[in-house]
Amino acid sequence: MVRAAILGSRGYTALELIKILLQHPRVEITALTTRQDESSDVSQVHPILSGRLDVRCERLDVSEIAERADVVFCCLPHGASMATIPGLLDAGLRVVDLSADYRLDDAQTYNQWYGLKHTDPDRLAETPYGLPELPGHGVDETIQLVANPGCYTSASILALAPLLSERLIEATGIIIDAKSGVSGAGRSPKLSNLYPECNESISPYGVGNHRHTPEIDLVLSRASGQAVKVVFTPHLVPMDRGILCTMYCRPTGQWSCEDMMRSLGEFHGDGHRFVRIVDHLPRTRDVSGTNFCDITVRESGGLLVVFSALDNLIKGAAGVAVQNFNLMYGFPETAGLLPGRAGEWSGDE
Amino acid sequence: MVRAAILGSRGYTALELIKILLQHPRVEITALTTRQDESSDVSQVHPILSGRLDVRCERLDVSEIAERADVVFCCLPHGASMATIPGLLDAGLRVVDLSADYRLDDAQTYNQWYGLKHTDPDRLAETPYGLPELPGHGVDETIQLVANPGCYTSASILALAPLLSERLIEATGIIIDAKSGVSGAGRSPKLSNLYPECNESISPYGVGNHRHTPEIDLVLSRASGQAVKVVFTPHLVPMDRGILCTMYCRPTGQWSCEDMMRSLGEFHGDGHRFVRIVDHLPRTRDVSGTNFCDITVRESGGLLVVFSALDNLIKGAAGVAVQNFNLMYGFPETAGLLPGRAGEWSGDE
Amino acid sequence: MVRAAILGSRGYTALELIKILLQHPRVEITALTTRQDESSDVSQVHPILSGRLDVRCERLDVSEIAERADVVFCCLPHGASMATIPGLLDAGLRVVDLSADYRLDDAQTYNQWYGLKHTDPDRLAETPYGLPELPGHGVDETIQLVANPGCYTSASILALAPLLSERLIEATGIIIDAKSGVSGAGRSPKLSNLYPECNESISPYGVGNHRHTPEIDLVLSRASGQAVKVVFTPHLVPMDRGILCTMYCRPTGQWSCEDMMRSLGEFHGDGHRFVRIVDHLPRTRDVSGTNFCDITVRESGGLLVVFSALDNLIKGAAGVAVQNFNLMYGFPETAGLLPGRAGEWSGDE
Amino acid sequence: MVRAAILGSRGYTALELIKILLQHPRVEITALTTRQDESSDVSQVHPILSGRLDVRCERLDVSEIAERADVVFCCLPHGASMATIPGLLDAGLRVVDLSADYRLDDAQTYNQWYGLKHTDPDRLAETPYGLPELPGHGVDETIQLVANPGCYTSASILALAPLLSERLIEATGIIIDAKSGVSGAGRSPKLSNLYPECNESISPYGVGNHRHTPEIDLVLSRASGQAVKVVFTPHLVPMDRGILCTMYCRPTGQWSCEDMMRSLGEFHGDGHRFVRIVDHLPRTRDVSGTNFCDITVRESGGLLVVFSALDNLIKGAAGVAVQNFNLMYGFPETAGLLPGRAGEWSGDE
Repeated sequence: MVRAAILGSRGYTALELIKILLQHPRVEITALTTRQDESSDVSQVHPILSGRLDVRCERLDVSEIAERADVVFCCLPHGASMATIPGLLDAGLRVVDLSADYRLDDAQTYNQWYGLKHTDPDRLAETPYGLPELPGHGVDETIQLVANPGCYTSASILALAPLLSERLIEATGIIIDAKSGVSGAGRSPKLSNLYPECNESISPYGVGNHRHTPEIDLVLSRASGQAVKVVFTPHLVPMDRGILCTMYCRPTGQWSCEDMMRSLGEFHGDGHRFVRIVDHLPRTRDVSGTNFCDITVRESGGLLVVFSALDNLIKGAAGVAVQNFNLMYGFPETAGLLPGRAGEWSGDE
Repeated sequence: MVRAAILGSRGYTALELIKILLQHPRVEITALTTRQDESSDVSQVHPILSGRLDVRCERLDVSEIAERADVVFCCLPHGASMATIPGLLDAGLRVVDLSADYRLDDAQTYNQWYGLKHTDPDRLAETPYGLPELPGHGVDETIQLVANPGCYTSASILALAPLLSERLIEATGIIIDAKSGVSGAGRSPKLSNLYPECNESISPYGVGNHRHTPEIDLVLSRASGQAVKVVFTPHLVPMDRGILCTMYCRPTGQWSCEDMMRSLGEFHGDGHRFVRIVDHLPRTRDVSGTNFCDITVRESGGLLVVFSALDNLIKGAAGVAVQNFNLMYGFPETAGLLPGRAGEWSGDE
Repeated sequence: MVRAAILGSRGYTALELIKILLQHPRVEITALTTRQDESSDVSQVHPILSGRLDVRCERLDVSEIAERADVVFCCLPHGASMATIPGLLDAGLRVVDLSADYRLDDAQTYNQWYGLKHTDPDRLAETPYGLPELPGHGVDETIQLVANPGCYTSASILALAPLLSERLIEATGIIIDAKSGVSGAGRSPKLSNLYPECNESISPYGVGNHRHTPEIDLVLSRASGQAVKVVFTPHLVPMDRGILCTMYCRPTGQWSCEDMMRSLGEFHGDGHRFVRIVDHLPRTRDVSGTNFCDITVRESGGLLVVFSALDNLIKGAAGVAVQNFNLMYGFPETAGLLPGRAGEWSGDE
Repeated sequence: MVRAAILGSRGYTALELIKILLQHPRVEITALTTRQDESSDVSQVHPILSGRLDVRCERLDVSEIAERADVVFCCLPHGASMATIPGLLDAGLRVVDLSADYRLDDAQTYNQWYGLKHTDPDRLAETPYGLPELPGHGVDETIQLVANPGCYTSASILALAPLLSERLIEATGIIIDAKSGVSGAGRSPKLSNLYPECNESISPYGVGNHRHTPEIDLVLSRASGQAVKVVFTPHLVPMDRGILCTMYCRPTGQWSCEDMMRSLGEFHGDGHRFVRIVDHLPRTRDVSGTNFCDITVRESGGLLVVFSALDNLIKGAAGVAVQNFNLMYGFPETAGLLPGRAGEWSGDE
């Protein structure tokens, strides 16, 4: 059994991670940290876990974590992650970082978008970006640290990377109109997350300056070998979870929806069990609670409109983190994510 | 025009109050206070008011308020209210207090339930309890301070007072199972009010110790001339606004639902335009955004089950505050609350 | 008093219309029709109206309507409207039609998008399109029939018409990514409107073929004197009411957000009390229950992003219908819509 | 592998059943029926299953079902179930019936509450009531047909049976104030289930005549050896799923909350992994998506208030159906329900 620690265990992503790892046949959760002084049973922090996990959420230092765990899922906020992770790595731990701290590839872009000086720039450049559906992602059994992708980013890239790689759509002027449930805003109380503020309302935010923008541009550019530039507009929707991206693209030549669907199907066809190229228009409730990303396309007014939907807490965070973990340990990519599925696990199971 | 100030103007109740007063033909809103240092335009605090009211939310002292206003609607929390109101009264202002500070009639009960020493006990005893549907409420043009009732309290009392006054139900063992929308918890960020905590969930809270309990007991006892004791259990429901009370009562003698409905109809019949005795089972959406309270009864297993529904922010707070204000100024009780209704306003309108 | 009939009184738009007309100082609601055989008290159909309106919803023929009413608000579905309205007009009634039947200007486009042969094509061409914020709308005291605009259409046009008229943005390739609450889908039970289908989900629909598309193109082309073509993508959002349009536009020349805001302000500045050009990003909850439309702009990736929000049942349907009614009768445009507002009504009120 | 058929596969309960069975290591889903003429791929009916199950929803007769399956989960409505099940049993199939048709034990009570003549009365009397947490439930490897309990019923009985069996509370006058999400009302379109009817509203229904009442009375009476009578009031809450029961009980003698908790803990202690006796007040979101039922108690005004929460579609329907199935096949009771949990499966897994 791999012993796993989760740092920043009070949040919504950490809860999803715990729920997935509880059904992973090769993992035991051995440590949960919080930056609060008070130590609490995990079932006080997340009552849904009552009777299912007997670990306390507590403040632990690196040596205590290293003693108890082999791998760390770091759910700390950006900034706090890069302050913590170098120590964990030095202590020999393997790390999946769910923050944004190791996703970009140069410190300057990081400094500019996050308003913080990056304190670990060398590692930033060499850390693989863990979106396992991208060829050449570089996450394997030799890797000690993986940067887990952003939720909006995954939803966008899984749909656009195939089309851009084949040069079926233009690399600039892509519009991503994105809609997210409120859990994406985290579990720290603030006015804009209150029930009576979010309920019965949809609102845009972060227009032109959301931090997933450079991440989308960077990864799509790398994946397609050209300079990709997107216009990204996120919106807050009155629901717990789910992201829907509606993407407007200009095809480069003669085209049909069938061509685009074929390209998507070929890219995601072999072995990428978590991307579903569907005929119907995706609804977030059809991916909610799962690690799937549903994608389809339509034509409208001469543009290609691409839709993708995923659960921001799972395929957008905790689920892909477990995919990365599985790759780091040579486990089947679906382990813990599709329990009971025939063929999930080969071997002695 | 009566010049009105609202203290504690950032909350949900204050917003409803402003919306009602904007359609009141005899009121001008002249001051809005906040305990925050920063002064803001009201449309920044409540964007729904953009272009409709040009007053700033600012920190004001008693003399500034007294200079600008004739009447004060005090939406401060309990404790803060009783620290502020004596000064306002001394300055000659008339006050409708929406907090709990002047609702009970002895300081000891207050101290016990609110965990605070009451600092204005003499006035506590003599302040009228402003539930205008109760006979002898005592709110009239001579009154300087009125205690506005609690939301759960109003929903309970409007339904139970008639039946208790006529001794149709037993005075003890009444069970009030109450359900409220989240706006009742206020606009201060805390974990339990976050969208992802409240959404897709119903939960009880304050079982056996909610502060509206002694208020319900006191007012029902006074209204019916006997010692009334209720068991009160509130629940949080995933909706913005609305309270539904389901009340289980033991009839005192032979009875039928028709008897009970007749008693309710007679009590609320003459001139109480805001209580509707209905045949259908009440839904909160049928009172939402209105100053109505809908009430009906059913028989179940030998018990009388009474249902009442109201909008916690309006009939449970801001709407009844305006009813009280109207009584204090000799205006029609419906002024501002039923705009355009034939006969709302007699005279020179 | 003007005597008003509402046809198709069981729906959500009809309910909003009733609520507005109840607070209109010059209107009496005298007839409500339904196509169901059973006649019901309006408070059975809409319990929120209990005690507020004593009119039955019943099947009425044209002569009965003409006997009771002066003006008809027609909330029938498209097709049913054009089958009914000629008779109403012949009987001397004035009509505000809330369906799509008289919005377009040629029968062929209607036939193509609605899959129905238009049965009253001459009148189609000459009926004014009642969006009162557009110069030259043509709704005045001489008019017998007005076509009330669509909800998505109003939200789009109020924001885009000013910019297109001044040629500040290109006329083609405008992308309108629209989000609507579920009440927009009407009150007829169907699987896709069920609570457990809509809740916790956002989904696109009608991509490339929504019937508001030709209406938007037509009205914007007419308003700006050029051929406008939009790409329109509606989405269903888990909320009762509200529409948010996120619109991506290519500016024609050198520009700044300030320029665009100035253009919007000038267009909507004089006397258009229901359009608010705001600095903050609009949320639908800040227009919910009101007749306001909030608009702002931002720059993103070289594009102009325009946001507009309105309540689909009010500013998108019942509220603008009352604006049109007011224009047809020479009443202040705000009558019934901003009760109590100083200056709403000039004269003997 | 056991081959399973699901009858009535279009509903919400059937979907949950499919999701659970997909992660059951000993089950293969081989047939899905619908009473509609049209045959559809299951992913059209339930898009969340895209790519996960390749079975069509189709109209099948008994012999076709018997050819494909060993066990049938019958999700047909009451009435339709008893018309179908005798034929299935004759064909040698084993059946878990999720309808109410075999839950009661005499035809007369059934006829009275369901308004239908029971057509299979002998089998009604002898069919075990499949609530596996009750001692003597009688579901084992010899049983061919099991009646799966109602959702409200399970939530009530799991909490009250222990206290009644030990005579800690009085058998009559128990009040069950129950609150349910909308999925409990099924997936057939009707006005009362529409999003804009349910959202932002809580409403009582079925007061004094809900069909789970005789089921609760019967099972509690049988479990405790005395005549139990409850007053049951269900309410509809704006959420997809979840049931909360608030139960008011009169203790029979001297008591404390600790006594009651101890009794609950002993009853549910050994091997009932799906009932959690918790200290905190239960929220439905803490059992949502799980097969757990959370229970706690409080004192209020001399009464014992008992709270229980479960997911109506899982522990209240599909989850307990799989528990029953596991008992019928000698599988671990948790198989399929707690994937990955250490010790779920003993043997060759």
